[in-house]
Amino acid sequence: MRRTRLAVALVVLFGFVGAVNAESDPLPSWNDGPTKRTILNFVRETTEPGSPKFVLPEERVATFDQDGTLWVEQPMYVQLQYCLGRVPALVRAKPELANVEPYKTILSGDKEAIAKLPKPELEKVLVATLSGMTVDQFTAEVKKWLATATDTRWHRHHTELTYEPMQELLKYLRTKGFKTYIVTGGGQDFVRAYSEDVYGIPPEQVVGTVGGVKYERAANGRPELMKEPKMLLDDNNAGKPEAIHLMIGRRPRAAFGNSTGDRQMLEYTRTGDGPRLSMIVLHDDAAREYAYGPAQGLPDSKVGTFTQDLYDEARHQRWTVISMKNDWRRIFSFEQ
Amino acid sequence: MRRTRLAVALVVLFGFVGAVNAESDPLPSWNDGPTKRTILNFVRETTEPGSPKFVLPEERVATFDQDGTLWVEQPMYVQLQYCLGRVPALVRAKPELANVEPYKTILSGDKEAIAKLPKPELEKVLVATLSGMTVDQFTAEVKKWLATATDTRWHRHHTELTYEPMQELLKYLRTKGFKTYIVTGGGQDFVRAYSEDVYGIPPEQVVGTVGGVKYERAANGRPELMKEPKMLLDDNNAGKPEAIHLMIGRRPRAAFGNSTGDRQMLEYTRTGDGPRLSMIVLHDDAAREYAYGPAQGLPDSKVGTFTQDLYDEARHQRWTVISMKNDWRRIFSFEQ
Repeated sequence: MRRTRLAVALVVLFGFVGAVNAESDPLPSWNDGPTKRTILNFVRETTEPGSPKFVLPEERVATFDQDGTLWVEQPMYVQLQYCLGRVPALVRAKPELANVEPYKTILSGDKEAIAKLPKPELEKVLVATLSGMTVDQFTAEVKKWLATATDTRWHRHHTELTYEPMQELLKYLRTKGFKTYIVTGGGQDFVRAYSEDVYGIPPEQVVGTVGGVKYERAANGRPELMKEPKMLLDDNNAGKPEAIHLMIGRRPRAAFGNSTGDRQMLEYTRTGDGPRLSMIVLHDDAAREYAYGPAQGLPDSKVGTFTQDLYDEARHQRWTVISMKNDWRRIFSFEQ
Repeated sequence: MRRTRLAVALVVLFGFVGAVNAESDPLPSWNDGPTKRTILNFVRETTEPGSPKFVLPEERVATFDQDGTLWVEQPMYVQLQYCLGRVPALVRAKPELANVEPYKTILSGDKEAIAKLPKPELEKVLVATLSGMTVDQFTAEVKKWLATATDTRWHRHHTELTYEPMQELLKYLRTKGFKTYIVTGGGQDFVRAYSEDVYGIPPEQVVGTVGGVKYERAANGRPELMKEPKMLLDDNNAGKPEAIHLMIGRRPRAAFGNSTGDRQMLEYTRTGDGPRLSMIVLHDDAAREYAYGPAQGLPDSKVGTFTQDLYDEARHQRWTVISMKNDWRRIFSFEQ
C-alpha cells in the first residue's frame, strides 16, 4: 500500500515536472547548451521587470536575415528559382524570346548550361520577371508559384523548408515583446508575398532589396504602383544597417544572420549600448541540411558564403555562432 | 417629497447621460456635422464585427501628412526654421562661413532679405545642417532645438502647435486597431526625433523624405550611420504612394492631407477596394490659425498650396474636405 502510494506520488510528481518543462521550454527544437542559454539569458535580462539590463518594449527590435537564416538557400536562392520558373510564361507572352539567350538555355532545362550563364544574362531574367507589372499582380504571381513549386532535395514546398528552431525563436521573441523584422538581401516585394503566412511577419516588417515603383494610372483608370526595372536599395552588407535605419529607425537589440552579407548588420547591432545579441548560423550539417563555409574547413559556396574571416570576427566580437549540427535538435517541422 | 425624489432622479439621469456622452465622444474637438459623422461612420463600418465592410485589423492603416495636417506649417515649415536656427552654431564651428552667402544674410537676422534668398542658396543651408553628423547626433540636436525654439505668433514651442482634433483622431483610430503613420514631405529623421513624444507615433511609422546614410566607423571605433548630403527619396506627390509601398507595403484605408503634395496619397487611398477614407484639411480660419489656398478664393501660399483644381478633385472623388473654421471646435489644446 505504501509502495503504491509512493509510486502514485512519483508519477504525479514527475508527470507534473514533465508538463512544466514541456510548457516552459519555448525552444524545444534547440539542444540544451551554451547557445540556447545565451538566447534565454538575453531575453530574461532584457525583459524581466527590475532587471538592470531591462529594455523598454518599444526598443525591442530583432532583425533576421532570411535566406540561410530562416529557410534553405541551397542549391539556389528561392527567388532565383522563381525568376527562372517564370521564363516559360514570359516566353508564352513574348514568343520572340524563345530563340534569344538566356531564355533559350533556360527553356532547354539543361541545368549545367543554366548554372554557367553569365551574371549579366541572369540579370536580364531578373529584370524581366521582377518588373513590368503592378505590385499586386506580382504578389499574386509569387503566391501562385509558391503554392506549387517544390524543392529538388526534399520535394516539398519552399515554405515548408523554414528552420523550426528559428520559427520557435521568432515566436518566443514576439511573446516577450520584441518586434521581429526580416532584413534580407532578397527582394522586399518577393518576401512580403509570404512573410505573414510563413513567419507571422507582416509586410511592413520586411526590409529587403528594393526595386523602384512608379505611381501611374493603370488601364482600368485606377492608380497603381508599377514595378520598375531599377534598383533603389541593395539590402546587403553595409546596405543592411542603412536600410534598418530607413525602415525602422532604431538600432536592433538582436540580429541573426548566416553569411558575409550580414556582417555589418551583426556589427551594428552588437556595438550598440546596453544588452545586444548578434548570432550567426553556421551550416555544418550536410546530413540533415547542407554544409558550406568556407569557414572551419567547410566546402566553399557562392550562395551564403561564410568566410573564415567572418567566423574569426564573430568569435572576437562575441557574437554567437549557431552550429546547425550541434545546436539544433530538429531542423524542419516535418521531421520526426 | 415626491418632487425631491423626481429632482434626484433627474439629476442622476442627466448626470449619467452627461457622463456617457463625455465618455462616448472620441472627438470632442470636432463640431457635430457631416465631417465628423463621416469619420465615425467609417470607423464603425470598418471595425465592428459583423459589419459587411469589416476590415481585418492588420489591414487598418491610416496615413497622415504632417505639416499643415497635424501641426502649423505657416509662415515657414518648422524644419526650415530649424535649419536656419542652426546657422549660428554652424558658423561658430566654421568661422570662415560668417562672410559667405547665404550665411551672412541669415546671420544678419533681416527677415525680408532671408525670405528673398534664392532656392539654391537655401539648399546649401539644408545640406549643411541636415548632413555631416551621425543620426544620433542629429536627433539630439533636433530635440535640443525643439525644447527652446518658439513660434512667432503664439510664442509657444512648435510641439504645442499640433491640432487637437487631429490628435484626438490619431488616438481614436489607434483605439480601434488602426496603425497610424506619418507620411511627410519633411525629413524622416527630423520628424522621428519627436513623433513618438508628440503624436505617439514610433520612428518605424514615420515615412518621410529620406537623405542617404552611410555606415562607417566613427572616431570612437564604433560603427555609426553618417547622414550624407544626398537625397534618396522625395516623399511628396507621387513619391508618397511610392514611399508608402516601400515602408508599409499596404494601400492605406484612410489618408489625411492638406496640400497638392498629398494629392497622389489621397487618390491612391480612395481608389482602393472596399471602404476607404480620404480627407483634406482646408485652412480657412485666419482668426484662429491661417487662411490659405488659393482654393475657394483663399489667399495664395507657397507653403502648403491647396489649389482650386485639387479642391475640385476632392469633391469629384468624394474625398472629404475638412474646414478648419467649421469642423473644428477647438484647434489647439491650450485654447479654452
